[in-house]
Amino acid sequence: MNMLVDGEWVTDAYQETDDDGEFQRQETMFRDRVEDDPDARFRPEAGRYHLYVSYACPWAHRTLLVRALKGLEDAITVDVVGPYRDEGGWQFTPEKEGCTPDTLNGSDYLREVYQAADDDVTGRVTVPVLWDKQEGTIVNNESKEILRMLDTEFGEVATRDVDLYPEGYREEVDRVIEAIYEPINNGVYRCGFANSQGAYDEAAEELFGALDHWDSVLEDQRYLAGDRLTEADICMFTTLVRFDEVYHTHFMCNHKLVREYDNLWPYLRDLYQTPGVAETVHMDHITEHYYTTHPDVSPKRIVPVGPDPDFEAPHDRDELPGEPPAALGEPAAAD
Amino acid sequence: MNMLVDGEWVTDAYQETDDDGEFQRQETMFRDRVEDDPDARFRPEAGRYHLYVSYACPWAHRTLLVRALKGLEDAITVDVVGPYRDEGGWQFTPEKEGCTPDTLNGSDYLREVYQAADDDVTGRVTVPVLWDKQEGTIVNNESKEILRMLDTEFGEVATRDVDLYPEGYREEVDRVIEAIYEPINNGVYRCGFANSQGAYDEAAEELFGALDHWDSVLEDQRYLAGDRLTEADICMFTTLVRFDEVYHTHFMCNHKLVREYDNLWPYLRDLYQTPGVAETVHMDHITEHYYTTHPDVSPKRIVPVGPDPDFEAPHDRDELPGEPPAALGEPAAAD
Repeated sequence: MNMLVDGEWVTDAYQETDDDGEFQRQETMFRDRVEDDPDARFRPEAGRYHLYVSYACPWAHRTLLVRALKGLEDAITVDVVGPYRDEGGWQFTPEKEGCTPDTLNGSDYLREVYQAADDDVTGRVTVPVLWDKQEGTIVNNESKEILRMLDTEFGEVATRDVDLYPEGYREEVDRVIEAIYEPINNGVYRCGFANSQGAYDEAAEELFGALDHWDSVLEDQRYLAGDRLTEADICMFTTLVRFDEVYHTHFMCNHKLVREYDNLWPYLRDLYQTPGVAETVHMDHITEHYYTTHPDVSPKRIVPVGPDPDFEAPHDRDELPGEPPAALGEPAAAD
Repeated sequence: MNMLVDGEWVTDAYQETDDDGEFQRQETMFRDRVEDDPDARFRPEAGRYHLYVSYACPWAHRTLLVRALKGLEDAITVDVVGPYRDEGGWQFTPEKEGCTPDTLNGSDYLREVYQAADDDVTGRVTVPVLWDKQEGTIVNNESKEILRMLDTEFGEVATRDVDLYPEGYREEVDRVIEAIYEPINNGVYRCGFANSQGAYDEAAEELFGALDHWDSVLEDQRYLAGDRLTEADICMFTTLVRFDEVYHTHFMCNHKLVREYDNLWPYLRDLYQTPGVAETVHMDHITEHYYTTHPDVSPKRIVPVGPDPDFEAPHDRDELPGEPPAALGEPAAAD
């Protein structure tokens, strides 16, 4: 796979799988933090930060969700790369529906944003990227951390009183996010990018074992961490919403469809119908990206017809204890 | 793709898709007929004929089904090739579970059987093959025609009184077989082997349009041609039984699963539970074949976990008019 090495773009710079054929995700490298602290280098300020995202990418999708739920649309601007990733990596294709140019740096490829942040950068060029317009650099490119920062550090800037990491739930939220990452969020990639039958079999067994487990958890509680919508649900959502259209076919996660699960499927619809969520789902970018960007998985680059799941169907999850944050029922407060 | 040209094995002898990226199935070339006629060259005689099949192949599967339903197991012998097809084409791999050697000709590859039949043969090397031990040649390698011959010409030899092309239904049987071939039986291949988005889209639309149509037909009638099990059901069965495990994922026929259809799914279970049918279904050969043999579709050659549909679940189709041939409830009659 391609990556930046000492600021230079190198194709085939590393293998995605180890000797056993198991997919190994490379670490992200920008790990600074925005902190709600007057002494912090990166303070939460409206208009200061910018997100580079792909609508296709489940990791970037997390940050768009928290931005929407908290009402940070005016405070944090966004640019959207094209769904198709060629040898040059993520690319700005403003002519495509839903895409934008790089409004800050004028780049053609996202790698130029990384180079602008650090001349000698080494690492994969991924989305999301949290960019600081004031310092002209990347604060962070790790989705879990950006999600947490937008959620917990931007309270003064957010226009909705939505807390996705509430006191009393934090330990459970962290536990769930950790528990679902390897088998589910990363698990679908471990299935799809496995280069040996053994690596695939192990990933698939863990994936469906975990889906079965969380399906049973969701029988009695509305959300993953209990009766509150939290960051854990955001992390689960961006994988589940892509599952039937993409992971089931493209990554051969074909033991079950999400829509065949008694609780995961209504849960997914419940999240989808939470105010602000549906607008962040761009299925055309999702399907085009996966099916056309991985020739080692789908060499014909054909986008299949897909099941077109009815995310708008009634879910009846409101019979369980808990409800979406009240503020989501209202328009975002004015500044 | 590979084929025999004037008796020589030529790799990359032809393109499977036309200029529009549409899959073009090559014609079969042995088209003689066994006839229940004293003057015929090929007469139906117990012990005279032999089938070369793959358990993976839906076309070969048709001939195994009619052989089983009519009780022709003792009259017509069978050899089974291995599920994995390499550059040499179908191969005898007797060390593999369920496979046999070439008990008649001692070949390593099925192409040698074709060469034994005709030194100068030109065409694709496919299963099923109906071989005449008496003349040492291939009678026919077109599944629809072998199915018809075994059904209508072997009445004296068959040990069960099962007629899959009954008087009064023949026109409808022919009409259905013709109607389902292009959109469904061949349609899944047209989806999977399409080399352009347009060719795929057209094939997928026709496939699911046809499945929707026959699903509605089967709401009021037990079988495709009415209240009698016929050859039309055999032709439909071998595609449907592979659908959720293979075509949905491997050939990206992912709009719906067969098990999501209100009538096709119970219909498939009804056929599966018809005496003699289940024993002809070798899902291990089916999945291994498809997922490992088409690197231009699934380059990693990994066999996915699959949904493992419960073909044994109750179907309630016996509430509709019609029933399986009475003779199927009995052991095959002795000679």
